[in-house]
Amino acid sequence: MKGKTVINAAGREVPLEINGQPAIPFKGVGKHRPAGRKHGTLVPTCIDFPSDGNKVVGSLEEAIRRCGLKSGMTISTHHHLRDGDLVSNTVFDIAADIGLKDLVWFPSASFPCHELLIKYLEDGTINRIEGSMNGPLGRFVSEGRMKGTAVLRSHGGRVQAIQDGEVKIDIAVLAAPSADFFGNARGTGGPSACGVLGYAKADYMYADKVIIVTDNLVEFPCYPMEIEGNYVDYVVVTDKIGIPERIVSGTTQITKSPDRLLIAELTARFLEKSGILMDGAAIQAGAGGTSLAIAVFLHDILREKGWESKFGFGGSTKYMVKMLEEGQMGYILDAQVFDLEAVRSVEENTHHVPYSVYNAYNYHSKGNLTSMMDIMILGATEVDLNFNGNVVTHSDGYLLHGIGGWQNCLHARNVILPIPLFRDRIPVIVDEVTTLCGPGELIDVIITERGIAINPLRKDLIENVKGSGLPIRTTQELKDEAEKICGKPQKARFDEEIVAVVKWVDGTVIDIVRKIKA
Amino acid sequence: MKGKTVINAAGREVPLEINGQPAIPFKGVGKHRPAGRKHGTLVPTCIDFPSDGNKVVGSLEEAIRRCGLKSGMTISTHHHLRDGDLVSNTVFDIAADIGLKDLVWFPSASFPCHELLIKYLEDGTINRIEGSMNGPLGRFVSEGRMKGTAVLRSHGGRVQAIQDGEVKIDIAVLAAPSADFFGNARGTGGPSACGVLGYAKADYMYADKVIIVTDNLVEFPCYPMEIEGNYVDYVVVTDKIGIPERIVSGTTQITKSPDRLLIAELTARFLEKSGILMDGAAIQAGAGGTSLAIAVFLHDILREKGWESKFGFGGSTKYMVKMLEEGQMGYILDAQVFDLEAVRSVEENTHHVPYSVYNAYNYHSKGNLTSMMDIMILGATEVDLNFNGNVVTHSDGYLLHGIGGWQNCLHARNVILPIPLFRDRIPVIVDEVTTLCGPGELIDVIITERGIAINPLRKDLIENVKGSGLPIRTTQELKDEAEKICGKPQKARFDEEIVAVVKWVDGTVIDIVRKIKA
Repeated sequence: MKGKTVINAAGREVPLEINGQPAIPFKGVGKHRPAGRKHGTLVPTCIDFPSDGNKVVGSLEEAIRRCGLKSGMTISTHHHLRDGDLVSNTVFDIAADIGLKDLVWFPSASFPCHELLIKYLEDGTINRIEGSMNGPLGRFVSEGRMKGTAVLRSHGGRVQAIQDGEVKIDIAVLAAPSADFFGNARGTGGPSACGVLGYAKADYMYADKVIIVTDNLVEFPCYPMEIEGNYVDYVVVTDKIGIPERIVSGTTQITKSPDRLLIAELTARFLEKSGILMDGAAIQAGAGGTSLAIAVFLHDILREKGWESKFGFGGSTKYMVKMLEEGQMGYILDAQVFDLEAVRSVEENTHHVPYSVYNAYNYHSKGNLTSMMDIMILGATEVDLNFNGNVVTHSDGYLLHGIGGWQNCLHARNVILPIPLFRDRIPVIVDEVTTLCGPGELIDVIITERGIAINPLRKDLIENVKGSGLPIRTTQELKDEAEKICGKPQKARFDEEIVAVVKWVDGTVIDIVRKIKA
Repeated sequence: MKGKTVINAAGREVPLEINGQPAIPFKGVGKHRPAGRKHGTLVPTCIDFPSDGNKVVGSLEEAIRRCGLKSGMTISTHHHLRDGDLVSNTVFDIAADIGLKDLVWFPSASFPCHELLIKYLEDGTINRIEGSMNGPLGRFVSEGRMKGTAVLRSHGGRVQAIQDGEVKIDIAVLAAPSADFFGNARGTGGPSACGVLGYAKADYMYADKVIIVTDNLVEFPCYPMEIEGNYVDYVVVTDKIGIPERIVSGTTQITKSPDRLLIAELTARFLEKSGILMDGAAIQAGAGGTSLAIAVFLHDILREKGWESKFGFGGSTKYMVKMLEEGQMGYILDAQVFDLEAVRSVEENTHHVPYSVYNAYNYHSKGNLTSMMDIMILGATEVDLNFNGNVVTHSDGYLLHGIGGWQNCLHARNVILPIPLFRDRIPVIVDEVTTLCGPGELIDVIITERGIAINPLRKDLIENVKGSGLPIRTTQELKDEAEKICGKPQKARFDEEIVAVVKWVDGTVIDIVRKIKA
């Protein structure tokens, strides 16, 4: 993509038009006010639906044809089947068979299994992906080989874009571990249980057509109804929607790396000493090895002090479930389940509650869950001296990750980034991030194995840990130390062409990704 | 109201404009196709909401002022507090104090306690009520004393009108027995428990501003979230939202009238002999004394045969709860709770599920629950020889009842009207209904204490009960018998002026109510 660009409020050059649609440059955190009204889907009528409630059709192809899929349309899917997803690829196999072109795939995330779609990006079936670009897909985009421009959004930004009509979903194809003939669906039960369907809500509410694909048709009413059948057009029953062992882990694993364990321990100590960890604190971590170790350390402290975290927000794991079951967490509100123990918990425990990202992360709603979280543990591929963060590209310039809920989570009260000082001998703290995903003013603390940097804006935290014996450093000191060990990293080299844009939580454009220089 | 009228597909004279807005005449069952898109509310932003999630303000007046209530605006409320509602009247006390005029009250139903609002209808604070008009309010309207024209909609028609933007709610004021500071709310808990909040969903999703009023502020997260806090603007905590003994009955009572009991018994026998009652049948009755008796008889038959009703749709009562708990009903899907036993059940039993009328009854959605019901027990004030039904006026022409879910429920597989042959010596079966609320083609069976009339369209049922010994009659025979006893009733006498219109489930106008002749 080429075209007119401007410098946005973060000092980044961004386009004024993306894929033929006007774009608004980032104006600063909390500065862009939306105008207009939420998107309205076509008004349906019961005239067009079977009175016995049975919407099952013979095949996914039949459902897609009945939905009237045409070239240029936008198809959405969710990522709850993660790397075991057998549905998304099939949709485009069918579209390619029909001979359609220039489709937009709008997933809530993509995984290595979706590498198969590269052939459809190459033959023109798919114009572009608007969503996370992991591994092979990211490399494809970075090399300038995708026809359209990728649009990267956070989970919350994705639902904001759907709600506001910035992305109009023609057909949502939603895999469901359990569903009834009317289209009510949930994330539990059956051979492909993924726990919850927290990423599907905006899709089914705002898509013109909705197809449910299940390998476990249950009696009406399928309950709880994470997807409400009265928004659903067709139900497809297939043999297999996913590969179970790639959907959820048999068991999520704590890091065994001594450095990462040190980071985790430092993080727990910091949270305790700084007063951030307290009785009632709302906690969100994640499913990475370091995050899990942090969860275990925090659990120990809570237990020891007789405290209870009011609630945690999932992605849930067995470590959160343990807190819930042992009485150190009041509720798990959950948009995504990572392991089998968490699947069991959401089925059994009325305090383990499905909670959509549409409710938790949408910045264009009347309040977010994220800003109510006391402790937010996040990662980053790079952080710069001013605490600005990058999660989508590596220092070599390649697009290799999605944003996930990262930008949304930056709105928490205390945003902590436990990150190694370097990865594969490449320093993580840099002069300037390759791609800006989150402004430094929202990132409070960086915790590395060789020291902790507190954002100067957080004078309260700096004060709280005085005399604590914790290794407090500046970002400059941490960067210097990393460079002493690894040397100064080479800057990525780019062509002019813009291959992807990164949106902020309010729909504005915060940065771009350029094509890698051949 | 005067103005241009036409004869609609049911042969009724209806206006082409109502309260200054164009109206579509009824075209026949399943004949009107909606055009256009669902209503979109203003896009909000987290910028305008407290990051700690606390939306509690000092008073209802403060909340209303902050919402920017102006003359001419539309205020919606739900009726879950029934005749114990202390919130709706207060809203208009505040509006009158501010000096506002020409407001529209858009309740999901009204009750005798709302008679107090007549003073605001008289002084111009309220222009009109769009919703059910019971007792004194109905009399007020029938006498031509309301400034605007009343618009009567079914519960499903109401949510259709909201969704389609036919009625734009400026402010929804939603009473909640339990709520947290963020605005998540439910129908259980606290001194004013009403069980579920199944009538509030379209209101909170489609109103521009939403106020929650509670007398039971609970810890975040209030769960289950029947109202989702991310749609809520303000939370108000008051001493008392309702008068408990008028919200739910201590205990709902089966009829003691021998005639009504006979009707109930005949109904149960008919359902059994006709084959309508079967293993798995989905059942909806109601909370009237005759309906409760029918529920008990049906329960006995199910138990005896070892059958289970797949699900029942509430309004729920202790008699449905008993079916659920004793294993003769799989699920209660519930939009409304009528007695204390049902409140207990919805709190305790995961198979007693809150289910909104937005999901169950909205004809402009992708399928309704009602058309999946096998047995639908309904009432009527009048039925004519062709099975057309009236539920809003009496034979004297006075508007005395709301439509409730009646029109929506007519879409069930088997619609049974167990009604007395006469009430207060006025026959219920008439030559022509005073007000047409539901076309006869949707009403299958009328069961009176002196015989059963089956709609000639239902040849299958006529066949099924041949030789059953049941007293099968024609509507003409039943009418003749009633008139032999009571004499031919006087026709109501009306002025020209239209005081109310009756909408069909698809938003078209099926009939009108004229001013009573002085």
